[in-house]
Amino acid sequence: MIYYDVSMKITPNMQVYKNKENKKPIFRVASDFNSSSAHETEVTLNLHTGTHMDFPLHMIENGQTSSELVLDRLIREVKVFDLTHVKDSISENDLKDLDICINDFILFKTKNSYEDAFNFKFIYIDQSAALYLNQKQVSGVGIDALGVERDQEDHMTHKLLFEKDIYIIEGLRLKKVEQGKYFMYALPIKMDNSDALLLSVILVA
Amino acid sequence: MIYYDVSMKITPNMQVYKNKENKKPIFRVASDFNSSSAHETEVTLNLHTGTHMDFPLHMIENGQTSSELVLDRLIREVKVFDLTHVKDSISENDLKDLDICINDFILFKTKNSYEDAFNFKFIYIDQSAALYLNQKQVSGVGIDALGVERDQEDHMTHKLLFEKDIYIIEGLRLKKVEQGKYFMYALPIKMDNSDALLLSVILVA
Repeated sequence: MIYYDVSMKITPNMQVYKNKENKKPIFRVASDFNSSSAHETEVTLNLHTGTHMDFPLHMIENGQTSSELVLDRLIREVKVFDLTHVKDSISENDLKDLDICINDFILFKTKNSYEDAFNFKFIYIDQSAALYLNQKQVSGVGIDALGVERDQEDHMTHKLLFEKDIYIIEGLRLKKVEQGKYFMYALPIKMDNSDALLLSVILVA
Repeated sequence: MIYYDVSMKITPNMQVYKNKENKKPIFRVASDFNSSSAHETEVTLNLHTGTHMDFPLHMIENGQTSSELVLDRLIREVKVFDLTHVKDSISENDLKDLDICINDFILFKTKNSYEDAFNFKFIYIDQSAALYLNQKQVSGVGIDALGVERDQEDHMTHKLLFEKDIYIIEGLRLKKVEQGKYFMYALPIKMDNSDALLLSVILVA
């Protein structure tokens, strides 16, 4: 079986959104052999760290949360599109000739996958592309950035996707993955009432 | 595709080892719409919470850590054995007639899978069974308890398994899974230098 591990590793100095210190994971030794017979590690992390899924509550007051997760929607065929030629943002023009159909789960591979540090000018999905995906009624969208958008007033990309119950995966690592169809296992650490869930994702060729 | 989700959900009041308060996950709203345009949740949790994998450092000073993880070993065929008849602990006698071979990854379904609260008398793998698995040179062992052992001096079950580089998965939920062979996707939230990693696990029939 050939598969690609497309999740980020969680480390103390990993890229976090806008490099904000308060978004960095904090590791703590909860017990060690000086005081106990077992070594245990504890971590504090924002659930939007690394590879994760957003839920509507992230951007919409009283929006749906992770309690509504349908796991079947994360275990399915996906289409990876190579958009590494895109310079600033993915717009409708970049999508309209692609084979994107109703109920597809699509993943965008961009230049972001080749950068490990946070780039304030990361490639994002602009409002026109989000509207296109909204109208296409895709089931899910994934991107290799810590956000599907940046610097857009009112977070319209998130909102246009959430409006049609489109799942959003952020923080993928797609450097080694070529354009094509794969079977995705995007398995969450399940929690209730959250605006995000940590994911571990593989793509099976 | 028929699959079973065999991971625990992480909740504030979930079962934790010995019901210790300091092992319970803590959820915090890191930002909300009173102060920000985004809602974000942060969690603090011991990495031995819910469904997880142990590494040798958990019980052995300077033992191997999650940095040595080989993901291939968690994506593979497994054998589930129904040991729901076992009363106190799984011993060599419970295993010797089972089809357990070198390099197998075996999961034990016990009465634990039917209990959601922590039971101080949970079914565990005793030292004789651990020695049997050590000699059989299995590749991995999973159980539906938060520990592979309890109340054994020197944590000999962990140590006998670690001695042969046998992977240990704890905190599985196997109530709905019948004895048999499955394909396991046990995907970790990857971190370095840790004594444990959170897992999300499905078994494909």
